[in-house]
Amino acid sequence: MVRARPICVTSVDTSVEGVHFRLGDGWMSARDVGWRSLAVALSDLAAMGAEPGEAYIALGLPQGLPEQEALELMRGAQELAEQCGTVIAGGDVVRAPALMVSVTVVGWSDSPDDLASRAGAVPGDLIAVTGRLGGAGAALAVLEAGADTVSGLAGSAPLRAALGRLRRPFPRLSEGAALAGEGVRAMIDLSDGLATDAVHLGMASGVRLRIELESLPLEPGLAELAGACSLDPLALAASAGEDYELCLCVSPPEREAVERRLAQVSDTALAWVGEVHAGQPGATFIGARGEERELRGFEHHW
Amino acid sequence: MVRARPICVTSVDTSVEGVHFRLGDGWMSARDVGWRSLAVALSDLAAMGAEPGEAYIALGLPQGLPEQEALELMRGAQELAEQCGTVIAGGDVVRAPALMVSVTVVGWSDSPDDLASRAGAVPGDLIAVTGRLGGAGAALAVLEAGADTVSGLAGSAPLRAALGRLRRPFPRLSEGAALAGEGVRAMIDLSDGLATDAVHLGMASGVRLRIELESLPLEPGLAELAGACSLDPLALAASAGEDYELCLCVSPPEREAVERRLAQVSDTALAWVGEVHAGQPGATFIGARGEERELRGFEHHW
Repeated sequence: MVRARPICVTSVDTSVEGVHFRLGDGWMSARDVGWRSLAVALSDLAAMGAEPGEAYIALGLPQGLPEQEALELMRGAQELAEQCGTVIAGGDVVRAPALMVSVTVVGWSDSPDDLASRAGAVPGDLIAVTGRLGGAGAALAVLEAGADTVSGLAGSAPLRAALGRLRRPFPRLSEGAALAGEGVRAMIDLSDGLATDAVHLGMASGVRLRIELESLPLEPGLAELAGACSLDPLALAASAGEDYELCLCVSPPEREAVERRLAQVSDTALAWVGEVHAGQPGATFIGARGEERELRGFEHHW
Repeated sequence: MVRARPICVTSVDTSVEGVHFRLGDGWMSARDVGWRSLAVALSDLAAMGAEPGEAYIALGLPQGLPEQEALELMRGAQELAEQCGTVIAGGDVVRAPALMVSVTVVGWSDSPDDLASRAGAVPGDLIAVTGRLGGAGAALAVLEAGADTVSGLAGSAPLRAALGRLRRPFPRLSEGAALAGEGVRAMIDLSDGLATDAVHLGMASGVRLRIELESLPLEPGLAELAGACSLDPLALAASAGEDYELCLCVSPPEREAVERRLAQVSDTALAWVGEVHAGQPGATFIGARGEERELRGFEHHW
């Protein structure tokens, strides 16, 4: 039983072993899986600018999974919950053919005006993203490339950092809450990658986002990791997903006020990556020579 | 985004194919699975006396499941939602190794005083249950017994009714809301069966429920179905579960007032099945000759 604030938002996110994560073998610990499953759900609240309240975790446990692993998973979720002011308030445990974590998060706000949505961007708005892109996707690409690629990068600081981003994404909750106010017309979190999520925002707002790939803020060391997998770093940053950064559309006169608001709560800066246009709803990506680039989402192999 | 009422309660319930239901082959249609998954979650709100608000459905779909089946499942959930004044407000669809439905329901109330919990029963309270017990469990026992048993009962009205109870349980929401007020000290829904759920209530309240098996209200025709499976009808009614009726503890002077409140919203009557005692928290079941009966929960084979 929870005493409510005036506005309630709810989001559900489900992760299944073999589809959304791989347990063990240098991929992820059970504790990582717990942290990440909650992080992914909370990231949706961040994109709305809601304050996280309660989380409810439904666990599907396969026969043979040691009880210790299930407890570790809940410990990982609890660690993140404590850092985010979220209460794990309930859930459900069932048997299932594969490890499955379905997280429902409830967020609160005092007024609809304090929340952002994907709809609301208008032509002329500027497009920004928080943080650095491509790190988590690069870590995943390295793991997918196999043991030789991983051991070729052994001891690489960029790989270590990128694995951290993949395993323990930190939802941009305080940034989202600060940004959701006046001047930010639409916001989305980057779970699938800008190539996909910018299209979602464009469709929801009925506008076309025009994004300059050269402006994307890249994870430090991304070129090294991308090179080891024979991938284009810009394509990784735009398409590989798993970053859980925020993408937002800002009315131009508000640009500096928005930057100031963000600076009050976070070390992360905004990178300005493009502009909103009228036209067929969706997104266009522009390469270094001004050409349009086709980007495809990555098909991950967990 | 939902405008909140003062008190919010949330419940999560997950059903997995092969663990909590079987699809097809005379067991359940996809539409039944959708209805039942939502019903099971809403039944938790009924036991609290909360008004149902929103439902969020996370679907895990195995490769090869026809899209039509997934749509039918959602249609079944939508049918029940409309009958219960619940809005399916969101969710998530992922790939999974087996069909999986995780339902989060959010209920609302204006005051904590309007809600019931499992804790609060005191020695001397009377124990009641709504509706009739054993029907859904008997249907399941018949299906588990195999094709010969099913065809031996072909055309049996009790089997038809029992299958309806199994496939389309109706959560006792209006009954729960009417009962949760003054005089009802504790309440639980019968998902696992009284043999298990009465123990849960007793543990939560720190009391011992003493239940007379001969007083249990049996589903009409239960003896015929139980006989076909060589099972004791009383054991089925107490232990097979799947009924989604309510069990409540009532302060004796309030008994008639509680019956009157229930009659205002429902055709179902209360059956008075026992009394709350001090002692080791849990439940005791008494047979026809006053002897204590050991009851085990059924191990279902979906």
